[in-house]
Amino acid sequence: MSGGLDSATTLYYAKSKGYDCECLIFDYGQRHKKEVESARKIARFCGAKYQAIKIDLPWKGSALLDSKIPIPKGRSLRRIKSGIPDTYVPARNTIFLSFAASYAEATGTEAIFIGANAVDFSGYPDCRPQYYEAFRKLIRRGTKAGAGKRQIRIFTPLIDKTKAQIIRMGTRLRVPYEYTWSCYSGGSRPCLRCDSCVLRAKGFKEAGLIDPLAKI
Amino acid sequence: MSGGLDSATTLYYAKSKGYDCECLIFDYGQRHKKEVESARKIARFCGAKYQAIKIDLPWKGSALLDSKIPIPKGRSLRRIKSGIPDTYVPARNTIFLSFAASYAEATGTEAIFIGANAVDFSGYPDCRPQYYEAFRKLIRRGTKAGAGKRQIRIFTPLIDKTKAQIIRMGTRLRVPYEYTWSCYSGGSRPCLRCDSCVLRAKGFKEAGLIDPLAKI
Repeated sequence: MSGGLDSATTLYYAKSKGYDCECLIFDYGQRHKKEVESARKIARFCGAKYQAIKIDLPWKGSALLDSKIPIPKGRSLRRIKSGIPDTYVPARNTIFLSFAASYAEATGTEAIFIGANAVDFSGYPDCRPQYYEAFRKLIRRGTKAGAGKRQIRIFTPLIDKTKAQIIRMGTRLRVPYEYTWSCYSGGSRPCLRCDSCVLRAKGFKEAGLIDPLAKI
Repeated sequence: MSGGLDSATTLYYAKSKGYDCECLIFDYGQRHKKEVESARKIARFCGAKYQAIKIDLPWKGSALLDSKIPIPKGRSLRRIKSGIPDTYVPARNTIFLSFAASYAEATGTEAIFIGANAVDFSGYPDCRPQYYEAFRKLIRRGTKAGAGKRQIRIFTPLIDKTKAQIIRMGTRLRVPYEYTWSCYSGGSRPCLRCDSCVLRAKGFKEAGLIDPLAKI
């Protein structure tokens, strides 16, 4: 769980389906700690267990990790969707999912939920449905659980939804969007100009709802 | 690189093929630090760069991580090859490879070498060829490198070799086997009774060579 809109909505969705959830919150050297704090707050508010996992990526390779690489700002939606931006973190979801698979196997957990989305997204390759198909196969082949009868299921409930659909769904599920944080920059208020802020604003606008963070 | 026979041989093999290697050494909460020390020693001896990566697996789930789970000892070869033992670490190679893929993508590295072996091995599912096929597909689909022209190649040069063939190959390549450590237990000498010691002894015997660690 990152503390953004998508992962918060996914947590509430899994809970609404009757799952007893534990959130894995990754501290992987992000420029700011705002998202880790948001994730903890949301997990507590939801009444879910959580744990923070520290991940060491000394090679950085992303604007989200390396303050020398500027975060793209003021890009149009068309531009955002046209390629893979500098905010892409090499193999990030593969790392996150491998920890989740390890956790699931060690603890007998039956499913992993991830809020990946391939509609209103930044073009990250590890957010697309075909990537998750490949990960499911990998886990079937590469775990003790997969070799036996007990499969670890991987759910991506938001994968084909627009940001507006996600926000409407989350609003019905009473996700505390006031605690979420989407902006790639830290600070006390969202910058409103990075790709993540642009996609968030589009989502609230199309959903006909007001972003509680817009008030701060 | 773990500091065992297979990863040391793989490093020397990659070097012999002209690769400029950097070793990723994972400190993932093993019961003893012997293998991490061995890995560093071998990397230095080989003249390869290396870095140690700390990995936090608080859920353990393996006899290699949890001192409350006994390490199986005194098992026959048939028994060793018959199932997945308690020394299996949930999703370990998926975690290691995801870090390697992240490193490779962030640094422009062209290939990942891993010393997985599916002949004289402990039945770990993440050592089998079909697991590596699935990982290659995952990386093609889930990275920026895979989406473009530059593919990250994943080599498993030992996958179908017996332990004896690996040792003969490593001996030709002048791998300093005296610096390797295979035993699952720590201590100053190998226990000679865990699965890893049994497979190592079988390899040296079949290769008609003397294990330099047998002298200590």
